[in-house]
Amino acid sequence: MKYEFKVKKIDVESGGKNVIILNKEDAEDLNLSAMDRVRVKDGGKSVIALVDLAESYVKRGEIGFFEEVSKKIKIKKGSKVKLEPVDKPVAIEYIKKKMDGIALNEDEINEIINEVMKEELSDVELTAFITSMYIRGLNNNETISLTKAIINSGSTLKINKKPILDKHCIGGVPGNRTTMLLVPIVAAAGLTIPKTSSRSITSPAGTADSMEVLAPVSLDEKKIKQVVKKTNACIAWGGAVNLAAADDKMIKIRHPLKMDPRGVLLASILAKKKAVGATHVLIDIPVGIGSKVLTYRDAEQLAKDFMDLGTKLGMEIHCITTPGYDPIGFAIGPALEAREIMRILYGEKVSLDLIDKSLVMAGLLLEMGGVAKEGEGRKMAQEILEDGRALKKMKEIIKAQGGNPNIKPEDIKIGKFKLDIFIREEGRIHLIHDKVISEIARTAGAPKDKGAGIYMYFEKGDKVKKGQKLMTIYAESKRKLEAAKEVFDKKVAVELDKVILENFSTETKPIVYDFG
Amino acid sequence: MKYEFKVKKIDVESGGKNVIILNKEDAEDLNLSAMDRVRVKDGGKSVIALVDLAESYVKRGEIGFFEEVSKKIKIKKGSKVKLEPVDKPVAIEYIKKKMDGIALNEDEINEIINEVMKEELSDVELTAFITSMYIRGLNNNETISLTKAIINSGSTLKINKKPILDKHCIGGVPGNRTTMLLVPIVAAAGLTIPKTSSRSITSPAGTADSMEVLAPVSLDEKKIKQVVKKTNACIAWGGAVNLAAADDKMIKIRHPLKMDPRGVLLASILAKKKAVGATHVLIDIPVGIGSKVLTYRDAEQLAKDFMDLGTKLGMEIHCITTPGYDPIGFAIGPALEAREIMRILYGEKVSLDLIDKSLVMAGLLLEMGGVAKEGEGRKMAQEILEDGRALKKMKEIIKAQGGNPNIKPEDIKIGKFKLDIFIREEGRIHLIHDKVISEIARTAGAPKDKGAGIYMYFEKGDKVKKGQKLMTIYAESKRKLEAAKEVFDKKVAVELDKVILENFSTETKPIVYDFG
Repeated sequence: MKYEFKVKKIDVESGGKNVIILNKEDAEDLNLSAMDRVRVKDGGKSVIALVDLAESYVKRGEIGFFEEVSKKIKIKKGSKVKLEPVDKPVAIEYIKKKMDGIALNEDEINEIINEVMKEELSDVELTAFITSMYIRGLNNNETISLTKAIINSGSTLKINKKPILDKHCIGGVPGNRTTMLLVPIVAAAGLTIPKTSSRSITSPAGTADSMEVLAPVSLDEKKIKQVVKKTNACIAWGGAVNLAAADDKMIKIRHPLKMDPRGVLLASILAKKKAVGATHVLIDIPVGIGSKVLTYRDAEQLAKDFMDLGTKLGMEIHCITTPGYDPIGFAIGPALEAREIMRILYGEKVSLDLIDKSLVMAGLLLEMGGVAKEGEGRKMAQEILEDGRALKKMKEIIKAQGGNPNIKPEDIKIGKFKLDIFIREEGRIHLIHDKVISEIARTAGAPKDKGAGIYMYFEKGDKVKKGQKLMTIYAESKRKLEAAKEVFDKKVAVELDKVILENFSTETKPIVYDFG
Repeated sequence: MKYEFKVKKIDVESGGKNVIILNKEDAEDLNLSAMDRVRVKDGGKSVIALVDLAESYVKRGEIGFFEEVSKKIKIKKGSKVKLEPVDKPVAIEYIKKKMDGIALNEDEINEIINEVMKEELSDVELTAFITSMYIRGLNNNETISLTKAIINSGSTLKINKKPILDKHCIGGVPGNRTTMLLVPIVAAAGLTIPKTSSRSITSPAGTADSMEVLAPVSLDEKKIKQVVKKTNACIAWGGAVNLAAADDKMIKIRHPLKMDPRGVLLASILAKKKAVGATHVLIDIPVGIGSKVLTYRDAEQLAKDFMDLGTKLGMEIHCITTPGYDPIGFAIGPALEAREIMRILYGEKVSLDLIDKSLVMAGLLLEMGGVAKEGEGRKMAQEILEDGRALKKMKEIIKAQGGNPNIKPEDIKIGKFKLDIFIREEGRIHLIHDKVISEIARTAGAPKDKGAGIYMYFEKGDKVKKGQKLMTIYAESKRKLEAAKEVFDKKVAVELDKVILENFSTETKPIVYDFG
């Protein structure tokens, strides 16, 4: 089979994949079904694409190019291309093997990741692979192979220094902006820490979203190297560089079903660390309801797995478990979090939990990097924060990344529409529901609207009195503020214990307070 | 969140699913990622759709409707619709549960199938479900629940007769056109057999494709009932009626990875039988290389599973295992197969294997239906075939379905381009490779070109001499005939044993003959 089709360009993306559209009749003629593969050829260039079908939009003799294919085969509309049948990629056999519970070897895993990178696997096939890894698990060899394949799927930062430090948090805790404190502390001590962070997917802000309030974070590899050369550090958005590229493609599939197969999680995290050239990595594993790891036992096993895999990749791994049931810090949302960080760097004693956690972690990194003796890292970190070296370093980083180093906390713009929520009854804060807090902040506009978010005035365990301010919701538009209030009114964001607990009655339902 | 967007219609199908496109910026504003769900509202009408993203094709403030959504929300382009966020369907929790190895109850399975029918699950989610069923398996209760859910997902034929007979072949054997012989035989004996068949997906012809050479097969439910009322039987295309609708949606996902989880296969087949009202079902399980079931032990277990499930659904099931390693009959391709059937009905002694298998199966159905005594069905079937009652009944069926009842075998149009392949060396036919034969016939144009296909002059075990005609390839265009020849030249379709087998040598490679 070799047929010519006239190109019709469709200015729509097909989600990263190479997809072409054929008329149903033509497809039948060629014995092609939806999701089959064909090779599209134009002279020397060729690309393998998945087939989609149309009844009328694409006429007989035409071929519709989605944007991805248009970019790869640059051709005028109306020109002709040839189609050739292709066999199914061998990767599909390997996926089937994994489904059947047979461990894959390095070559097989490489082949699958290659196909992922070439965008030649359909979502159905990639989902089957990820579901299989979720259900069947990965053994140690498979995990190493997968990690290496992911590392090789993208570029690597080549920074000519040693040691190179890095840290990672397993995620799930809002307001957890330790990175923006510990990076300047660690760098101020003379250690190298080229930090790439993510933007938020489901939370009100990722580290990259908050840092972006202070300086550009979409740095390419060249720029990152420059910044790190000047300052020993950076706080950049990982999505702007092509590190561990296969991981991003898998996350798209893992996200809708929250599939975090152990081996894939390990591979995904450590591949990114290896790709920046890290030699020492600190991993923060928050434990508890609302975070990804529910029990300390699970956390311990995960820590062990990280250390095993890290050793095999030539990295020293240090893991800590931290309480994961409450927001860290009082600010939630990009600008509010950035402002909180700058306040702390300027010496204000706010968000003590956040300061404490950041100092512990910075201290461990200082010890791992060999500039502090065992047990003395935290003290050194505290000195660096308190004597202004951390602030000085943060200013250098902001400047090197292209921001204004003289920005003061009060210069940071917060959403001008706000709503205060007051305590209606005396009690003690029993629980702050992360997910509801996230939803309110996101409905208020975070992370897209930098100034949107929530400022909490109390934390878990605090005693509160009627009339005290519990939180303020900020938004950049009145409409979004109202929408956020609607969420607050409908759901329970904060629960109070009654002060008089001994006053039992037959009423056994938990008493839920709503505020505002 | 409640926002208005201007509708832009996109004349492209999104594979059955409700998909809308938003501009990336708008989506970020709304905290929506690709594959998230939204409710699209226009006055009273609303539909839940999956989100796709565009950078420029859909501008800010616009919403792109793929055809599926355009059909459900009929609105002029340029009009405005509202968007509302929706929570993830609860079905996703159940899919996650199945992934985690927890058996699902009837309500949970119903909910998943409901979501499938509403087109509210993405391919990723549905694939995860099917992969989970493949890996985890289904227990008896789950299989029954799934079968019932599939039955309820479509309509059911209500034919007011008893018993109602049906047969099913697990598939995989080309040229296996027993249905077109046994249906007229069984109906001529006074039994009711409303047969719905599939079109080909990967083979050169399905029963519906072959029958369509003789009469229309795209009959709706009303027409099927009319035809059955008149003739006791029909041979219709299952795709034209809405029986067991959820099954078709799952097949799309199962097809690319050939995922036939046992429970799903059972549910898929018996749901369709129950939906036509069958009381007695004969299931043909071909065993061997090239068919879906490899060993007799597997076939036995499968037969047991069919009988168990059938009993629970109130149907009597009879299973037979048949050899599945060779094409049945000499003709492959819609018109060639239809001509072979008509020859047999007109009394010619061709394709003796096909006649034999059809008579055995028809005989069993006559016994199951209570019109023949045990052990006497085959004889009765043979009489019905030989005395012309089967031909008479077939003419009635052809007429009732809207075809020409007076069609003769020689009236059936075969592709006018043909290529004869001759034997080049004496020997015995050792193997006929189903898959290669299928590929040749499909490349020649089958099933789309009704006249395309292959006629084989020998079968496995036959002694052949140099110069004898082995097969003829037919096509409706010269180009396709040449393409088919190319496949024949490249691949091994038929293998010969050397006649002098005792003449051993150190050459241990199997000797492969190619012809032509």
